[in-house]
Amino acid sequence: MRITIIGSGNVATHLAAAFKNAGHRIMQVYSRDMQHAALLAYHVGAEPVDSLNQINSETDLFVISIKDDVIGQIAEKLSSYNKLIVHTSGATHLEAIQAFTPNAGVFYPLQTLSKTKEVDFRTVPICIEGADEQITGQLIELAQTISNKVYRVNSAQRKVLHLAAVFACNFPNYLYGVAQQLLAKNEMDFDLLRPLILETAQKVQDHPPADVQTGPAVRNDQQTMAMHLAMLGDEPALKVIYELLSQEIIKNDNDRAAG
Amino acid sequence: MRITIIGSGNVATHLAAAFKNAGHRIMQVYSRDMQHAALLAYHVGAEPVDSLNQINSETDLFVISIKDDVIGQIAEKLSSYNKLIVHTSGATHLEAIQAFTPNAGVFYPLQTLSKTKEVDFRTVPICIEGADEQITGQLIELAQTISNKVYRVNSAQRKVLHLAAVFACNFPNYLYGVAQQLLAKNEMDFDLLRPLILETAQKVQDHPPADVQTGPAVRNDQQTMAMHLAMLGDEPALKVIYELLSQEIIKNDNDRAAG
Repeated sequence: MRITIIGSGNVATHLAAAFKNAGHRIMQVYSRDMQHAALLAYHVGAEPVDSLNQINSETDLFVISIKDDVIGQIAEKLSSYNKLIVHTSGATHLEAIQAFTPNAGVFYPLQTLSKTKEVDFRTVPICIEGADEQITGQLIELAQTISNKVYRVNSAQRKVLHLAAVFACNFPNYLYGVAQQLLAKNEMDFDLLRPLILETAQKVQDHPPADVQTGPAVRNDQQTMAMHLAMLGDEPALKVIYELLSQEIIKNDNDRAAG
Repeated sequence: MRITIIGSGNVATHLAAAFKNAGHRIMQVYSRDMQHAALLAYHVGAEPVDSLNQINSETDLFVISIKDDVIGQIAEKLSSYNKLIVHTSGATHLEAIQAFTPNAGVFYPLQTLSKTKEVDFRTVPICIEGADEQITGQLIELAQTISNKVYRVNSAQRKVLHLAAVFACNFPNYLYGVAQQLLAKNEMDFDLLRPLILETAQKVQDHPPADVQTGPAVRNDQQTMAMHLAMLGDEPALKVIYELLSQEIIKNDNDRAAG
């Protein structure tokens, strides 16, 4: 497929490389910043452009991978070429593109991507939505050339998925930081906890989280919880977080026992 | 070294196997339940016993790996043999053994261990405390025969470590479950989030958590956070958790910027 990449950020970079590796042809890379466009374009054998006026209409697909709030205005400009246009945003409705063209879709890779870190794209879930069945089918086929995990996810579901990812990724990472700070205050290195963090994430790869819940809350070990709360005495926010999450773990476990 | 294992649970099982593989000799395995004792003893070529009266004094080390609240009474009984005695508990003071003998120590493997899941013990941090320098040195040497990650951690630090592990392991696992339930309610499979969970844990293996924090809170994206809170409308506890954790992420990030 001939693909034009709009954007040069983390998602654009990883996607362009994955498409290229799968044998697709990257026609152009657009970025407002010519240096950024040139860097990515060089890697994937494409032409860099920094103006939408230089867009080559000889392409099959525009992949818009830029800030959520400018997806609409870029889609509007690209719609004149009558080619398929997708965005890669978890939080943006299909409507942002569909308002300007029926050739609209979403191609959302659900992973935390950093330019400096290699990722095996075949393991990255890709969430597909098309404005019609024909487009959906075409995008699923394209996604399968770069990933083994392709899902149909509509705009309402994608919104929930984005929220769930905050609970599954952003909040755990914050809690890792809390643990690190507790250790640092007591002259211990975060390396002590790193294997535990990794194993905890690995366990839920083949178990439901509730089945592998451990710790004082799920054992309803009131003595340990009281001691932990006392230790957090000078950290009111952490104390509330500890109490609230522990209560919910206990409640969940009771619900399971009852159900 | 000749080692006697008191207990047959997850930690006892993994430790006994690791010692055996490193060339140590497991003398006996004690459990109140003879079947449990026999199963583990068989695996590590030891004699199973279900009564403390059958304990063979021809050993160098007793490893007590049983419920926290009975460590003391077992240590008291074993103290008559005048051999080194350690427990493997994160939440128990050295004093639980030291009250009965000066030959006391702690040998605490910091990992979430399940009998059914293999673990590479060389990657498991082992936290060592000895009643004196000679014992500490001896236990560090022993720990290094089974793990590459051996740390000196005193009883006060170990208590903090245990608390930090709740934040780094138990609470994230609960949040994975929240994400799973949000998906299930909207007919999506948890497989969609599993790669993200693993990558999030992998990222902090070589970065401080605050450096790789992502999501709406660290971007202070008020619009997305307001939308997420509205979506959690019928889940008051999740709403409070979302607000509280987001506030702390924003606060942390401001502190970093200021510092």
